[in-house]
Amino acid sequence: MSSTGIAILGSTGSIGCNTLSVVESFGDERFRVVALAAGRNTKKLAEQIERHRPALVAARDEAAADELLAELKSRGVAAPRVEAGEAGLVAVATREGADCVVSATVGAVGLVPTLRALEAGKRVALANKETLVIAGELMTRAAREAGAELLPVDSEHNALHQCLRGERREEVRRLLLTASGGPFRAKTSRAMEEATVEEAMRHPTWNMGAKVTIDSATLMNKGLEVIEAHWLFGFGPEEIDIVVHPESVVHSMIELVDGSVIAQMGVTDMRHAIQYALTYPERHACRALPRLDLTKLSALHFEAVDSARFPCVGLAYRALRRGGTLPAALNAANEEAVSAFIAGRIRLTDIPRVIERVMDAHGVRPVGDLNVVIEADREAREAARGEIAKSEEASKAAV
Amino acid sequence: MSSTGIAILGSTGSIGCNTLSVVESFGDERFRVVALAAGRNTKKLAEQIERHRPALVAARDEAAADELLAELKSRGVAAPRVEAGEAGLVAVATREGADCVVSATVGAVGLVPTLRALEAGKRVALANKETLVIAGELMTRAAREAGAELLPVDSEHNALHQCLRGERREEVRRLLLTASGGPFRAKTSRAMEEATVEEAMRHPTWNMGAKVTIDSATLMNKGLEVIEAHWLFGFGPEEIDIVVHPESVVHSMIELVDGSVIAQMGVTDMRHAIQYALTYPERHACRALPRLDLTKLSALHFEAVDSARFPCVGLAYRALRRGGTLPAALNAANEEAVSAFIAGRIRLTDIPRVIERVMDAHGVRPVGDLNVVIEADREAREAARGEIAKSEEASKAAV
Repeated sequence: MSSTGIAILGSTGSIGCNTLSVVESFGDERFRVVALAAGRNTKKLAEQIERHRPALVAARDEAAADELLAELKSRGVAAPRVEAGEAGLVAVATREGADCVVSATVGAVGLVPTLRALEAGKRVALANKETLVIAGELMTRAAREAGAELLPVDSEHNALHQCLRGERREEVRRLLLTASGGPFRAKTSRAMEEATVEEAMRHPTWNMGAKVTIDSATLMNKGLEVIEAHWLFGFGPEEIDIVVHPESVVHSMIELVDGSVIAQMGVTDMRHAIQYALTYPERHACRALPRLDLTKLSALHFEAVDSARFPCVGLAYRALRRGGTLPAALNAANEEAVSAFIAGRIRLTDIPRVIERVMDAHGVRPVGDLNVVIEADREAREAARGEIAKSEEASKAAV
Repeated sequence: MSSTGIAILGSTGSIGCNTLSVVESFGDERFRVVALAAGRNTKKLAEQIERHRPALVAARDEAAADELLAELKSRGVAAPRVEAGEAGLVAVATREGADCVVSATVGAVGLVPTLRALEAGKRVALANKETLVIAGELMTRAAREAGAELLPVDSEHNALHQCLRGERREEVRRLLLTASGGPFRAKTSRAMEEATVEEAMRHPTWNMGAKVTIDSATLMNKGLEVIEAHWLFGFGPEEIDIVVHPESVVHSMIELVDGSVIAQMGVTDMRHAIQYALTYPERHACRALPRLDLTKLSALHFEAVDSARFPCVGLAYRALRRGGTLPAALNAANEEAVSAFIAGRIRLTDIPRVIERVMDAHGVRPVGDLNVVIEADREAREAARGEIAKSEEASKAAV
């Protein structure tokens, strides 16, 4: 078969780098990198350009574009076409010759380019879960209308996709998303109140970016995944459950109507799910990855979620049940709160408090088009910033 | 849809009774029992006739047929047509109106009727694993030629069938059969030398018949399952592995070429696999069965097989690799040795010794037709009885 053209939104992040590692593992025949978009890390982007020679690159803004061109010049690398900002992301996402777009930017910035890629009929390998959380209805409608495939790169949804391959929708009773439980799984509420950024960043099983790692500590990551699973697979909130599984060996499961449970297991390396999404429906050997040896593992454990200590899970279910713009508000408030926590402005346990207040105050409306979502996102961010400032003042007053 | 006609070979055994329990759980609409065959338990067979009113019944022999008729008369139940012996089993297996034949007799007696059912184009739900061990080549050829389906009722193979539903053969790297490890998993070789029949019958997770339970204690059950998996799914001996999993929650797994492992889990109740085989490709709610709640389980463990303590496993792989009539000889010698152990004539650890000697002396030839297999079976039984007598004499001499 001819080679598959790959475009990556967020090429210098952990998913982006792992995607390029998968592409390289196939040599030159299977894939070609046609377009890359990255944020602040122009040095790494320059390295990627030198190695993969994409025809088009998007930088965060004009300043980053200039920095990138200077970096390429200093390396003696011929510059590809360089664009900037959202227009640049959209150009990368809709680039001619890009058969598969890996959507791996962090947060709401991937929204417009991912929608455009789907509208252009491209396969989207989706790592940016916020895209579906915020605008799942619009994304899945666009995919349906353009005949575009939407394949999950999140290990949990990728696992569900694998488990669902041989099954009929009406014979699947529920989806069981596994959660590592994060660094606070076995900690007290008190320890969570006092958690430092460093503690929250110590994820037990996966090595990921900062935003996702904090979301794993609050279990908001799992809440967002519940919403994502709803849009990817068409299951209602009452058909999606979370099981805490500290070893992260079982990546997720489905339960059939006859009581059978099908699980997907593997090593905890994102390259597996990325490769699956790039090559589906084919499977290929992952030469770069170790094989799972169950006999060398410690025991596998499964626990229920402690929803009292992890209120973000309940907030996500509430947003999914209510629908409309509420998931967008949840996501925006979460992004702002996580940033404020990483900046040392609020406590870990303030994150759900900020989100809940923003949700309570949010005027939910139907998601008619992208503008509605973008406006809800903007409003919720503003409201969240207000709540964050209040939290900061309260804690200063307490000291 | 119209109701499915069911015939059961071995209706009073544990698989037979569980099959009738599944049939009953659907009420009168989905299934009708058209023919039953049973062995010694004429009382239970009479009960089943009273309840399910099959048109045809087969008893073990003429004496059992007479006993059955007397039992039915004493209950005031109108007698169906009653046949006896192998001719009776074949009549049940090929009965007009039987869409699905559940092959659940113990040992080599199921061979001919199962082959006839496949030749007649009927779906066979196979619980009699010896059938495939002895004559896998003939059975699968007959199924292919008649367009008959062969669906496994063994929980492990049923699990593999479920795992393989969405996958392409060439993308599956290996099958991983799980083994509970039996009652001697954590025992010493010494303890196994001295094991009583009672100890060997204490299966940790499954409640099954005597022969299968002893096979589980020696792990010969798993060895036979490796051979069975070869014929059912077309994988070579080097592509089939065994993993000890004491909790029997994961019923079996497959590993794909990309390193992904797909596992099927469920409660340890044979009715699940039976129902799957009866209703495939449909899945239906199992109202009679509890649901698997992973959060209420203890941890799941996986270990390698200790092939030194369980030599039956190596013998089975050897028989599969060599092929021809050697698996038939292995199976026949095992049946004789297990009977002798249950009768208190030899020790548990004599079972593999008897089998190995029979295999060493067996003149392997290709499986051209059923007569070759039946002759190999007869020869190996005779050889095994000789070895058993020698073992008995040796142990008497030692006392």
